[in-house]
Amino acid sequence: AWQWIDLHAGPLPSDRVDLIEAHGHVLATAICAPMVVPPVDRAAVDGYAVPGMATLGAGAYHPLVFLLPMEAALEHSAASAGAAVPVTAGMPLPQGTDAIVPAAFAEESDGQVEVTAAFAPGENVVRRGMAVAQGACLLPAGRRLRWHDLALLSSVGSEQVGVIRQPRIRLVVTGSELVAAGQRHRFDQVFETNSVMLRGLLARDGGRLENIWRTQDDRTAIRNALLAAGADIILISGGSGLGRNDYTAELVAEEGELALHGLALEPASSAGLGRIGGALLVLLPGDPGACLCAYEVLGARAVRLMGGGSANWPYAKLQAEVGKKIVSSPGRTDYCLVRLVDGCIEPCPSGLYAASRADGFIVVPEACEGYPPGVEITVYRYAFCDD
Amino acid sequence: AWQWIDLHAGPLPSDRVDLIEAHGHVLATAICAPMVVPPVDRAAVDGYAVPGMATLGAGAYHPLVFLLPMEAALEHSAASAGAAVPVTAGMPLPQGTDAIVPAAFAEESDGQVEVTAAFAPGENVVRRGMAVAQGACLLPAGRRLRWHDLALLSSVGSEQVGVIRQPRIRLVVTGSELVAAGQRHRFDQVFETNSVMLRGLLARDGGRLENIWRTQDDRTAIRNALLAAGADIILISGGSGLGRNDYTAELVAEEGELALHGLALEPASSAGLGRIGGALLVLLPGDPGACLCAYEVLGARAVRLMGGGSANWPYAKLQAEVGKKIVSSPGRTDYCLVRLVDGCIEPCPSGLYAASRADGFIVVPEACEGYPPGVEITVYRYAFCDD
Repeated sequence: AWQWIDLHAGPLPSDRVDLIEAHGHVLATAICAPMVVPPVDRAAVDGYAVPGMATLGAGAYHPLVFLLPMEAALEHSAASAGAAVPVTAGMPLPQGTDAIVPAAFAEESDGQVEVTAAFAPGENVVRRGMAVAQGACLLPAGRRLRWHDLALLSSVGSEQVGVIRQPRIRLVVTGSELVAAGQRHRFDQVFETNSVMLRGLLARDGGRLENIWRTQDDRTAIRNALLAAGADIILISGGSGLGRNDYTAELVAEEGELALHGLALEPASSAGLGRIGGALLVLLPGDPGACLCAYEVLGARAVRLMGGGSANWPYAKLQAEVGKKIVSSPGRTDYCLVRLVDGCIEPCPSGLYAASRADGFIVVPEACEGYPPGVEITVYRYAFCDD
Repeated sequence: AWQWIDLHAGPLPSDRVDLIEAHGHVLATAICAPMVVPPVDRAAVDGYAVPGMATLGAGAYHPLVFLLPMEAALEHSAASAGAAVPVTAGMPLPQGTDAIVPAAFAEESDGQVEVTAAFAPGENVVRRGMAVAQGACLLPAGRRLRWHDLALLSSVGSEQVGVIRQPRIRLVVTGSELVAAGQRHRFDQVFETNSVMLRGLLARDGGRLENIWRTQDDRTAIRNALLAAGADIILISGGSGLGRNDYTAELVAEEGELALHGLALEPASSAGLGRIGGALLVLLPGDPGACLCAYEVLGARAVRLMGGGSANWPYAKLQAEVGKKIVSSPGRTDYCLVRLVDGCIEPCPSGLYAASRADGFIVVPEACEGYPPGVEITVYRYAFCDD
């Protein structure tokens, strides 16, 4: 399944987005500095701009006196010889100056300044190009943009940035038994949860959720939802199995390509993959625990790869020891929820209630029958980083 | 400074938000299950509902025959004795049945079904209350909501949820030299970056950015920005120092309370804290590298605590060895950017360009003069978890 996804979920073409929308997007091309920063020498601190050589010999017991320029001269930002020009941090250096005396080493009175320490040329100055040199490569192609990166790009005047387009997602939620939370609910109905969960996971993975279609278990409605244009990825939840109301796999096979259906994956064995009308399609089981597993293992990977991102799970990893035996059937891969109890791994049942209590998950590979206590394995952590 | 923040940035009152907006919010009170899930026994798989006892003795070489009920009986979801009722996963169990024969163990033909294995009462059934029991505590007060949690709440019909209100943030960006990225730019002007960076970091920390005020270095404009109503936290960048155009600290002291100004914190020594017009105020230096440090150390903590969150940094932590000597002055705390080179920590210069290249940061405490190579310390990682 991963091979098929990696083959069919290649990065989309590039796109330009506003800088403030670009967090988490992946750069389409490397970005070189369009200007040097700063474009001129600037004061690094508040103080007085001077020719540094003129302060040599100054000390606490031997202050040197500089004249303050008159207001008219200040306007021109030019210091006459022997003058000290008041500056604030960030101001361009006045002509004829090359060092800043910080305010703490200068005593101003009556149109003159006593300087009590020496500052060599260049001291307390941010030189032209010191922050960003001419033509410097600011960020490489393929970089997933962090907040600092956006600030860096903005510091060289960029308003927009060229990124891999994020995939447009259509979410199709099928099931005649489903009602939305907040609605009246009969005993034979089920509150719909998958759209709530997937909406969030898609945002995390950089999928642009364009619309949510809700359908009954109805061939025509499901076909319409699958064949509408405008999606790069269709996630369809429910109806993935082989029951008499399960139409999805059949419709995909009829109208597109059903590449894989039925995986040796617990708890999402009815998941599937295919293509329809130009979109990649992931069949997700309707059961929320199984839907979570299928999205994490299949859907999330496709979403991230199409957006130019990583195939890896976006979870912090932790090595920990198994505390209670974890059992798996050989011949299938298990997405197994776990808790960390005194730092040791214990398996949880599947399902939403367990997922909410779980500290993360482990993957038990196909060839493995599970893990006895004491073995060290990798946990993918659901927690916020500061929990 | 942290003590002052912890004292003045207590959690805000609670608020109700829509479930789909609630990710990352902190629960104001524990949530108990308002209903059991499922509310009735349900089929766990597609197949045939039967009285389990009636399948005893069935085997591949000894199939037992059940009648399919007629359509009329199906409507009433009641099985007559000796009948097997077709069900799909999730359907309530028909009266008189207590187990499901999965489709793989049943052969249907001519109005009857051959069952080829025995299923005890309860097998392949999700019992009433099995997912969520009556009155179960679903989530404790203080829980920061993850996506699974929202799905869990939606599964019991919740549409909204009671959370600690997230703080309303006013961002005031001061500086006569600033222009926005994309605008024309003279050599003595600087592209404004802090709002781009802070917008993102605020979103991460759960701060609701209500508005951005941009002002010149002008007392009246800054006073207006500080005194307007409606913010829980004011972040003001620029003008935090003691230069002649630095009005912020003075204005806060005049119009409110300037609690702390000037911190033994590198590179954000001009940062400050105070209160004005009911809002908590953080003075951030205008220099982007220093602004990042001050926001991370002071602002972010206040934002998270007011929203009911954790004082801890929201970064994955890593223990690593120092590769190149890290120098710090005793008597001040250093927020030091670092790179990981072959798994070892090397210091970076401060500033945006370095921050974008850094793998994270370390904190060198006040009493410490730095770290020699070989010492193991904690790195807070900037990276996405899957990088």
